[in-house]
Amino acid sequence: MAKSGQRRRKRRLYRIQRRTRPGAAPGTVAVDPLAHATAVDLFGYGPDGYVEEKNVTPERVVECIASWPITWVNVEGLADAGVLRRLADIFRLHPLVREDVVNVHQRPKVEPYEDQLFIVTRMMSLADQGDEVEHEQLSIVLGRNFVVTFQDRPGDVLDPVRERIRTGAPIRRSGPDHLAYALVDAVVDHYFPVLERFGERIEALEEEVIARPDAITLGKIHQAKRDLLLVRRAAWPQRDALAELSRDSLALISPATRVYLRDCYDHSVQVIDLLESFREMASALLEIHVSMLSNRLNEVMKVLTIFSTIFIPLTFVTSLYGMNFDPDASPWNMPELRWVYGYPFVLVLMLGVAALTFGYIYRKGWVGRAARLRPESAPSRDTE
Amino acid sequence: MAKSGQRRRKRRLYRIQRRTRPGAAPGTVAVDPLAHATAVDLFGYGPDGYVEEKNVTPERVVECIASWPITWVNVEGLADAGVLRRLADIFRLHPLVREDVVNVHQRPKVEPYEDQLFIVTRMMSLADQGDEVEHEQLSIVLGRNFVVTFQDRPGDVLDPVRERIRTGAPIRRSGPDHLAYALVDAVVDHYFPVLERFGERIEALEEEVIARPDAITLGKIHQAKRDLLLVRRAAWPQRDALAELSRDSLALISPATRVYLRDCYDHSVQVIDLLESFREMASALLEIHVSMLSNRLNEVMKVLTIFSTIFIPLTFVTSLYGMNFDPDASPWNMPELRWVYGYPFVLVLMLGVAALTFGYIYRKGWVGRAARLRPESAPSRDTE
Amino acid sequence: MAKSGQRRRKRRLYRIQRRTRPGAAPGTVAVDPLAHATAVDLFGYGPDGYVEEKNVTPERVVECIASWPITWVNVEGLADAGVLRRLADIFRLHPLVREDVVNVHQRPKVEPYEDQLFIVTRMMSLADQGDEVEHEQLSIVLGRNFVVTFQDRPGDVLDPVRERIRTGAPIRRSGPDHLAYALVDAVVDHYFPVLERFGERIEALEEEVIARPDAITLGKIHQAKRDLLLVRRAAWPQRDALAELSRDSLALISPATRVYLRDCYDHSVQVIDLLESFREMASALLEIHVSMLSNRLNEVMKVLTIFSTIFIPLTFVTSLYGMNFDPDASPWNMPELRWVYGYPFVLVLMLGVAALTFGYIYRKGWVGRAARLRPESAPSRDTE
Amino acid sequence: MAKSGQRRRKRRLYRIQRRTRPGAAPGTVAVDPLAHATAVDLFGYGPDGYVEEKNVTPERVVECIASWPITWVNVEGLADAGVLRRLADIFRLHPLVREDVVNVHQRPKVEPYEDQLFIVTRMMSLADQGDEVEHEQLSIVLGRNFVVTFQDRPGDVLDPVRERIRTGAPIRRSGPDHLAYALVDAVVDHYFPVLERFGERIEALEEEVIARPDAITLGKIHQAKRDLLLVRRAAWPQRDALAELSRDSLALISPATRVYLRDCYDHSVQVIDLLESFREMASALLEIHVSMLSNRLNEVMKVLTIFSTIFIPLTFVTSLYGMNFDPDASPWNMPELRWVYGYPFVLVLMLGVAALTFGYIYRKGWVGRAARLRPESAPSRDTE
Amino acid sequence: MAKSGQRRRKRRLYRIQRRTRPGAAPGTVAVDPLAHATAVDLFGYGPDGYVEEKNVTPERVVECIASWPITWVNVEGLADAGVLRRLADIFRLHPLVREDVVNVHQRPKVEPYEDQLFIVTRMMSLADQGDEVEHEQLSIVLGRNFVVTFQDRPGDVLDPVRERIRTGAPIRRSGPDHLAYALVDAVVDHYFPVLERFGERIEALEEEVIARPDAITLGKIHQAKRDLLLVRRAAWPQRDALAELSRDSLALISPATRVYLRDCYDHSVQVIDLLESFREMASALLEIHVSMLSNRLNEVMKVLTIFSTIFIPLTFVTSLYGMNFDPDASPWNMPELRWVYGYPFVLVLMLGVAALTFGYIYRKGWVGRAARLRPESAPSRDTE
Repeated sequence: MAKSGQRRRKRRLYRIQRRTRPGAAPGTVAVDPLAHATAVDLFGYGPDGYVEEKNVTPERVVECIASWPITWVNVEGLADAGVLRRLADIFRLHPLVREDVVNVHQRPKVEPYEDQLFIVTRMMSLADQGDEVEHEQLSIVLGRNFVVTFQDRPGDVLDPVRERIRTGAPIRRSGPDHLAYALVDAVVDHYFPVLERFGERIEALEEEVIARPDAITLGKIHQAKRDLLLVRRAAWPQRDALAELSRDSLALISPATRVYLRDCYDHSVQVIDLLESFREMASALLEIHVSMLSNRLNEVMKVLTIFSTIFIPLTFVTSLYGMNFDPDASPWNMPELRWVYGYPFVLVLMLGVAALTFGYIYRKGWVGRAARLRPESAPSRDTE
Repeated sequence: MAKSGQRRRKRRLYRIQRRTRPGAAPGTVAVDPLAHATAVDLFGYGPDGYVEEKNVTPERVVECIASWPITWVNVEGLADAGVLRRLADIFRLHPLVREDVVNVHQRPKVEPYEDQLFIVTRMMSLADQGDEVEHEQLSIVLGRNFVVTFQDRPGDVLDPVRERIRTGAPIRRSGPDHLAYALVDAVVDHYFPVLERFGERIEALEEEVIARPDAITLGKIHQAKRDLLLVRRAAWPQRDALAELSRDSLALISPATRVYLRDCYDHSVQVIDLLESFREMASALLEIHVSMLSNRLNEVMKVLTIFSTIFIPLTFVTSLYGMNFDPDASPWNMPELRWVYGYPFVLVLMLGVAALTFGYIYRKGWVGRAARLRPESAPSRDTE
Repeated sequence: MAKSGQRRRKRRLYRIQRRTRPGAAPGTVAVDPLAHATAVDLFGYGPDGYVEEKNVTPERVVECIASWPITWVNVEGLADAGVLRRLADIFRLHPLVREDVVNVHQRPKVEPYEDQLFIVTRMMSLADQGDEVEHEQLSIVLGRNFVVTFQDRPGDVLDPVRERIRTGAPIRRSGPDHLAYALVDAVVDHYFPVLERFGERIEALEEEVIARPDAITLGKIHQAKRDLLLVRRAAWPQRDALAELSRDSLALISPATRVYLRDCYDHSVQVIDLLESFREMASALLEIHVSMLSNRLNEVMKVLTIFSTIFIPLTFVTSLYGMNFDPDASPWNMPELRWVYGYPFVLVLMLGVAALTFGYIYRKGWVGRAARLRPESAPSRDTE
Repeated sequence: MAKSGQRRRKRRLYRIQRRTRPGAAPGTVAVDPLAHATAVDLFGYGPDGYVEEKNVTPERVVECIASWPITWVNVEGLADAGVLRRLADIFRLHPLVREDVVNVHQRPKVEPYEDQLFIVTRMMSLADQGDEVEHEQLSIVLGRNFVVTFQDRPGDVLDPVRERIRTGAPIRRSGPDHLAYALVDAVVDHYFPVLERFGERIEALEEEVIARPDAITLGKIHQAKRDLLLVRRAAWPQRDALAELSRDSLALISPATRVYLRDCYDHSVQVIDLLESFREMASALLEIHVSMLSNRLNEVMKVLTIFSTIFIPLTFVTSLYGMNFDPDASPWNMPELRWVYGYPFVLVLMLGVAALTFGYIYRKGWVGRAARLRPESAPSRDTE
Repeated sequence: MAKSGQRRRKRRLYRIQRRTRPGAAPGTVAVDPLAHATAVDLFGYGPDGYVEEKNVTPERVVECIASWPITWVNVEGLADAGVLRRLADIFRLHPLVREDVVNVHQRPKVEPYEDQLFIVTRMMSLADQGDEVEHEQLSIVLGRNFVVTFQDRPGDVLDPVRERIRTGAPIRRSGPDHLAYALVDAVVDHYFPVLERFGERIEALEEEVIARPDAITLGKIHQAKRDLLLVRRAAWPQRDALAELSRDSLALISPATRVYLRDCYDHSVQVIDLLESFREMASALLEIHVSMLSNRLNEVMKVLTIFSTIFIPLTFVTSLYGMNFDPDASPWNMPELRWVYGYPFVLVLMLGVAALTFGYIYRKGWVGRAARLRPESAPSRDTE
């Protein structure tokens, strides 16, 4: 069971955008049968106040647009095709926007339409229990007096923005472009805790790979590399999208907001700097892993070789005198066996052989203090 | 027989564009003797209706162009040089287009001619039985009131487009540029199932490389890398071609269609993102494979070393007392052999030596619980 | 002798452009003492006819230019400084062109001069007997009514162009720019058979590296990588030169020819696509080679370990009962030796020990069917 | 304890920019509770003189701006939010500048505001005791008649600039843009000693990896790579910032100063050249490490193999004649044991076997002078 | 002593630009205490003649400028700050030029000043005795009617240029820009012999790595890689500088000279092509080195395994019959010892066991002809 869960998780990493059917007509709002139930939340605000409502109908959205300077509609869950279609009609969304909003595996991008700006971002967060990276598409449509956001699942990283609308003056005095900026900024800022967790994982793996370079560590390194690839696949196009947003050309973004978006772009570049550093480190870990294994094999083989080279000649000597040549049959046949000091002589001989072999091994630097300080390939490097 | 089939398949991966003869005059429609028989299918349509005919003659094509606003001619199989030449004359194709259409190993590209646009794409699909990737050139000529497509073999990924012409209004109300978009979009969308299969292959290889790192797995990884290279060789120029199509400069593409082509370009970029991720993963698999082999060698050598280091000293001791020095000849000659407790003493001695060696190995962490917590192999990690 | 030949071949791969003396004045036509004898061939043609002459004098060239609309002068062999100088004077070549024509290790390039275009390309072909790649500089000077080509050695890839002048109308009706295109196109097209051979070499190496990963295979892979580097060093600048040729800015190239050059550029990009694929594959082969060696070492060590671990304990037991403790001297001294069933007991004991050890090895998965299906790191993966 | 210290140090390497809360309103001056106490130093100067004051109040800053042509305010330590806010108000800093000044993990960058230029650089220096690289953000705000600098901690690399203000004429005759240049130049120049130290570390590691390739060396290489990554993360964006500064477009930078900034940009490019060289070298060290380990394993295994192959056949012979077949029971039972020259014969036999084995090993080139000069894979390469 | 020399040489490779003090005022002509003595040489020339003088004073330089159309002043050795300052004043050098001229570790670059062009190049040459690459900064200042060159040490690669001034007409008829070109061209051309030597080194290493893959070879490969890095650090910015020189924008360069500079740029690109090829080859050598070591380990281990697997069972058998069970005590106790054909039977048994083991090893393909032709992983591939 745990295993099948693990399979499912992996599968998701590779989940691939798939429209209704390859080749279907664009603009088809094809709802995923496994999508979460749709809930529409609403913020209407202006410099003088705000209204916040949950689970509203599309009709209420129309009223709100009429009565407040700026309206933010947040759609969570994409199961109810009817509600989605009515909202799309209210905001006059382009067929391609309708399609991209429900196909939740878009690359982050910015698409200017006649009087709207369509921004796709990807929220990243850590799953509660650990290292797993969760991600979710956040589609933002910025219009003259509204912002509509669509997300796949309940739960998001936008609560600080909501809090700022409730409490604060500055955001309420700015236009909808500033709200869109605030949303994108919240998304980008949430990459940092995710990256911090990656930093910790890689540090832990660094220690582990030195202490215990086995297949499990290898699996963890590979998993980290894969997770980094996943984040990277979102972070790079997000940077490009932010670069486009902070350029001069978009009519719906005021110059004041553009300065803030440039700052947000800087953060997205920083995200990528860190990502690439982590990726390099993870790659280096693989190389170190191989080196460590090689190191340990050396250790193991050195022990085997030391034992073998010391005892093999000794055993040969004992074996020699275990031969059954009959000293009675001939004076040439192992007369040592009857020498008075035959046995002590052999013992001393063996001691000598052992000492010689050990000396040879010691000079090779395979044993004792020398194993660290005087290796064979550089025999006299004591100044170091 | 299976082997020669495999050879042929491999050969195809490397199949290289080869015109009639290197250096031949351009525009020579040199038919491949192995080409499939030519079949010309026809769609004539307008906002108010459509006609669909199969296996028509070039003359019928001329009639259709005259009577319908938009004509789509699909040519399957490139064996009949006469039919091809007559069609090329009807649509006044440039000599280079005539040549590229039959040389079915072009890179995807876009070439604007005076009043035509020549688009080469590459269809990808999975062979029925498994992992093998099949690909086929689809050449599209877009004119003022027609689209002509050429393909090498029967069978394609364009049925959804045909269905949309039969059933749907939107495509019938748009111009031939929208039809061309629909064809290209269908081609790009069909890359996703192919990539999904790659994702599954790589996942399976990840499990296999940890569980069973042998030469067969190695061969599969290499095969996957090679297949990815093949898809990549089509995907990158296809992305460039789509970028060119979605730019402002082409006269035959209306602004409305350009928005759709931009979307299609986004999909082609996504294809490349996934491809490059898979390629990185496949490369990492090779590294992991080496690490796993190293790991296993460590395991094997540890077992050998443990057995050897424990038994080598013991065997030396037994061998020692197997020497035939004659205790009768001298009191120095192995008096132990006649001690009352000689044998038990030796047994205890050997037990001691074995315990010492084992202790040494245990402290090295090569065996038992220590092998889990300090050093290398960590057999049962259930909390993770 | 074969060896010195091999050395010479290698040396040539690294042959480095070397002008008369580093720092010499430009424009010095410094003839290589080893250059081939100079032979000047001539084509004069127009829509209505052609003349073909071999081994003509510079004076004849002047006549031909005067009498035919287009003249193609082909110079083979660069030994005769006098002839070269006279030709250079006839065609008023720039000092740098004079120099580059005889220094036959230029990178492919395009250089526009006042009323001439200087194109350097590199012909590639396979040596008769096998894998060796031969290359030769082809310098093309395109003027208002002539094309001059210079090559180092007799023999080239331009015969199809000659044939087209002799037989065909289209090339005779076009200007000298079309002739220059035809020459460049013939050069680029001849890369494909060379690449096809590389494809076959790499395929053969793929099979060899799996079947027989030794030092000879390693050498072949390295040789293939080196040959690919060589072709690559010609192919990349050739692509750049073709890109420049197919751009708008050159006065001597007519728009009609430019379309053909664009096609030729596409082919040069395809050459590079294939080259880079082959390079990746060759690199992967090196990695696979290491893996295969590691694999085989594992195999070898497993056999050693199995034999050793089974027999080492057994030999210890036999060695134990080979000790010469005197059962007469004490009842504690190896009483087993005189037991009635002593020997059978020991045989059974050894059988038991062997069975235990074998069981241990079998459970590790190092032997028998399990060695493939039930490896130690993944003990119960039968669903796969 | 030492270890936790080490952990903390590592943690710092990965420290990630984190604003108050992800998604918080921009411009919030959120002071780090661990920040150093704030100290404001002051330079007022003009062509005719200067004043230098330490630990001044914001009010004194206002006076100074009024009375001197150019004012340089240096803020060390960012703990006192009140002082920071008052200074920010005096200099009318943009909310984003206020925020970036206290969030001391910005990437180096240049941001033009209406009449100010905001420059973020990163100072690098070596810790006193050794290899550790210390870095600190230096934020520079350049206005019409002032420069404000903010740094996280006391101690900086700017003393040469202070000295030049005190002693020298040239800087006092130039505008505030020249002061900003001098500060940036001092920062960039201090990268060179840091890089020199890296050069020494890598050299030492090169010697170590050849002499003693163990896990400790491996750790040091990895640490060097990681430190290089850290410096690199500062150096690349710093180069980009300097490129922007030396471009034409910024109003606050005079053409004369721009020439100096171009020089400073050249230095930053040189920093990157060296960094990338070091990175390549560090990567090569990892590869060499693996090679060296492989080399040593070869050595170890050769010794084991030589000992084993020589003694294993000998021990077999001795063991053979240790069998207890009863020569009395049959004339076929080991009659050698009673031969007159049985024992000498066996000794000679063993000598012969040993000589043969040794000869085999010697021919393989595993021993003696041949181990260097005549390796097996190239048996007769004496001409070299 | 040799070692400390080696250290010094290495140190130089990493020598890092260091101005007087980091952060010092720009334009300080801070003379290196180890600099060579200053010697000023002079060429004055025009179409009609030339004058060449050695060791002139600054005053003589002023005279020469007044009397000849073009003056070339070459300064060798940078020890005499007074002379340098006077020359700098004569030619009105910018403070940054004064500084860069004496800090001889600049990157190659081109800097346009008001009416001067400052070009920094790096001369490369081989040390007399061998592989060591020597390099030296050559700073060129091009003015309206003069060229000043500064070099660190006596000895340069400019003699061919001097010779051309003495003998030849063309350079004397051109402007100072042509002289500057001739100098740069001489510098670039001298890279080719250096590269040729690299080609030879890499070829030699290729042979060595196959024949004798040990730590010394490894060190040589690493050294070659490091030397290539050094050359590369000069070659890349030199190419960029030449690209800038051959562009249209510089006032001091005439169009005629620009054509020559473009040619020189082509050579610098060729230098980089070769450099990068060599770098790839050197990297491949490291990989091949590891493979070769792995290969040899396989060889060694195969020998050990063959000896062990053959003799271990035999020794077990002999050891078995060396047990001392008393046949007198029981009919079950080793009755074989007293069989008539006991000994021959055991000998035959051992022969059988040895044959079986050998057969197993032979089938594995570890021995004899099969070791090359019939490897285990591909048992029946004879058609290939």
